[in-house]
Amino acid sequence: AKRPTLQTVTLIPGDGIGPEISVAVMKIFESAKVPIQWEERNVTAIQGPGGRWMIPPDCKESMDRTLIGLKGPLKTPIAAGHPSMNLLLRKTFDLYANVRPCVSIEGYKTPYTDVDLVTIRENTEGEYSGIEHIIVDGVVQSIKLITEDASRRIAEYAFEYARNNQRSSVTAVHKANIMRMSDGLFLRKCREVAENFKDIKFTEMYLDTVCLNMVQDPTQFDVLVMPNLYGDILSDLCAGLIGGLGVTPSGNIGANGVAIFESVHGTAPDIAGLDMANPTALLLSAVMMLRHMGMHDYGKKIETACFDTIRDKKVLTGDLGGKSKCSEFTEEICRRVRDMD
Amino acid sequence: AKRPTLQTVTLIPGDGIGPEISVAVMKIFESAKVPIQWEERNVTAIQGPGGRWMIPPDCKESMDRTLIGLKGPLKTPIAAGHPSMNLLLRKTFDLYANVRPCVSIEGYKTPYTDVDLVTIRENTEGEYSGIEHIIVDGVVQSIKLITEDASRRIAEYAFEYARNNQRSSVTAVHKANIMRMSDGLFLRKCREVAENFKDIKFTEMYLDTVCLNMVQDPTQFDVLVMPNLYGDILSDLCAGLIGGLGVTPSGNIGANGVAIFESVHGTAPDIAGLDMANPTALLLSAVMMLRHMGMHDYGKKIETACFDTIRDKKVLTGDLGGKSKCSEFTEEICRRVRDMD
Ligand SMILES: CC(C)[C@H](C(=O)O)[C@@H](O)C(=O)O
Ligand SMILES: CC(C)[C@H](C(=O)O)[C@@H](O)C(=O)O
Repeated sequence: AKRPTLQTVTLIPGDGIGPEISVAVMKIFESAKVPIQWEERNVTAIQGPGGRWMIPPDCKESMDRTLIGLKGPLKTPIAAGHPSMNLLLRKTFDLYANVRPCVSIEGYKTPYTDVDLVTIRENTEGEYSGIEHIIVDGVVQSIKLITEDASRRIAEYAFEYARNNQRSSVTAVHKANIMRMSDGLFLRKCREVAENFKDIKFTEMYLDTVCLNMVQDPTQFDVLVMPNLYGDILSDLCAGLIGGLGVTPSGNIGANGVAIFESVHGTAPDIAGLDMANPTALLLSAVMMLRHMGMHDYGKKIETACFDTIRDKKVLTGDLGGKSKCSEFTEEICRRVRDMD
Repeated sequence: AKRPTLQTVTLIPGDGIGPEISVAVMKIFESAKVPIQWEERNVTAIQGPGGRWMIPPDCKESMDRTLIGLKGPLKTPIAAGHPSMNLLLRKTFDLYANVRPCVSIEGYKTPYTDVDLVTIRENTEGEYSGIEHIIVDGVVQSIKLITEDASRRIAEYAFEYARNNQRSSVTAVHKANIMRMSDGLFLRKCREVAENFKDIKFTEMYLDTVCLNMVQDPTQFDVLVMPNLYGDILSDLCAGLIGGLGVTPSGNIGANGVAIFESVHGTAPDIAGLDMANPTALLLSAVMMLRHMGMHDYGKKIETACFDTIRDKKVLTGDLGGKSKCSEFTEEICRRVRDMD
């Protein structure tokens, strides 16, 4: 058998529990003999010419070369005065699609079963434009920016995603009854793109209605596509249905294969360094990454080992209801991965 | 005993099932001998001088006199070109606080129990400003407007509400990490007002975090206060937790006692006129209205009769899992009300 060439992935361990859950992922990848090598980079806010906030040049250079990143949580103190580094990364590499699959995890009990949906969030504009003004004292406006190009692009991504992942429907989530021009434009583009995907069922629904129906019966949803802020809200809501941010993966996808996969939970400074963190969200994000890179078999193997460990309930971290350390949970997944050979 | 003087309430039956659920409420009020008389008004969009959309003058005149309205659902076809009449009513009477209590209903099974929270939504500005522009072809902006006055006013309302209703905490819901100036202003006003209510615990939380925590454990929340769109979303989400819009009341409160109470479900044209509609949301909104008017005993009596009927499960409309007609469900509540005398 031909030895596969090693691909390089940029690893951004992040802050707080970031480094230890990154180590966990690297160990599990090693035990699965995944043919990738890691290139570690730190991300801290730095100021370029004219005071513009940027990510460090060596991280930019690495990502430009590897095209693929895996990222732990980054702390984003509002007080620091710089934009969220998570957002800056999405912006720097024009990662326009934020993809979060939400699938019920066997053995992890929540009020819901059989959830199996994907939120696809426009990741570059909308309410996240960052454009705000003081009109007069005590009157502030924030601008929500919706463009035809970004709307068409995310709609196309959603339908392509549905088609490539054997999913049957796409729901556009909007408030075009209120924001008639902006959400109206977004919705129009979704409708237009839908015309080219006759094999995928297309529906439209108000955001408030989606939220209501979601908590009543999430199994009615499949792929959902929406502007930035709505995606922020809905993706967290959906994560809550299946167990929270500790177990949900996320991918930020750009053009030409560029992508950063990340765990979207916080840095959990209170337990950082104590070998108590749960690496599942970062691990499942890394599994998404493997699939994105075409390494489906490695992805499947690691995912199975992770889900089996959770279903088995013997070696779990505290947040999953167990008493094991991060390193023990990690070792249990490694053991299962090795046993599959 | 002194016969109480009759107070007049403006009744806007609305469209679709609106008239029949309004009849149901009137019957129940009659059986409870509530000392109010109804003044019925229709609301259709009319255009005033300069093309401005307004509510009909006879409805405006009635509300200006009675100060209190009860309203069924209004249809709002986007295609009609006029703004939602629901919004126009809120605007016309400057009903700045949208209040929706969400309390688990005994006997109506959902995945959640012991929900007991209130969403208080700023009802006049924010993302609902209606200000939108096309910047260039394919680029649209919507303006979210946040003012100091409206933010302080809604924060004060929320804290007063908490105090007057024996509630212990207020949570401000925001995305000030993203919309730093607008949500930042809203949040700052909440903090300032909190200073004057030392008896009420104040917390702040990101909207996405609230959504996630809400579906994991809604019992952790008490009073929540937030800008317009967030309230639209969260109030529907919370309604979903306890059974949907068919069973959740809503009140739009303005200055000097002006208020309109409304059921926030749709007009359900498919079952309109078929004696199948569930009047619970409008009835519970009418109960909120009675409390607002100081008629607590009447409110309690009717509310008890309604909840007893639901808990009993013998006479329920289809959406509540039963087989009874709207009129039978109504008569059952009337019977219980009369039996309490
Ligand atoms: C960290 C924060 C800026 C971010 C967002 O609001 O998008 C987060 O909530 C997310 O969903 O990735
Ligand atoms: C009818 C619609 C305009 C309204 C809104 O968006 O506010 C509704 O969803 C509500 O919550 O009362």
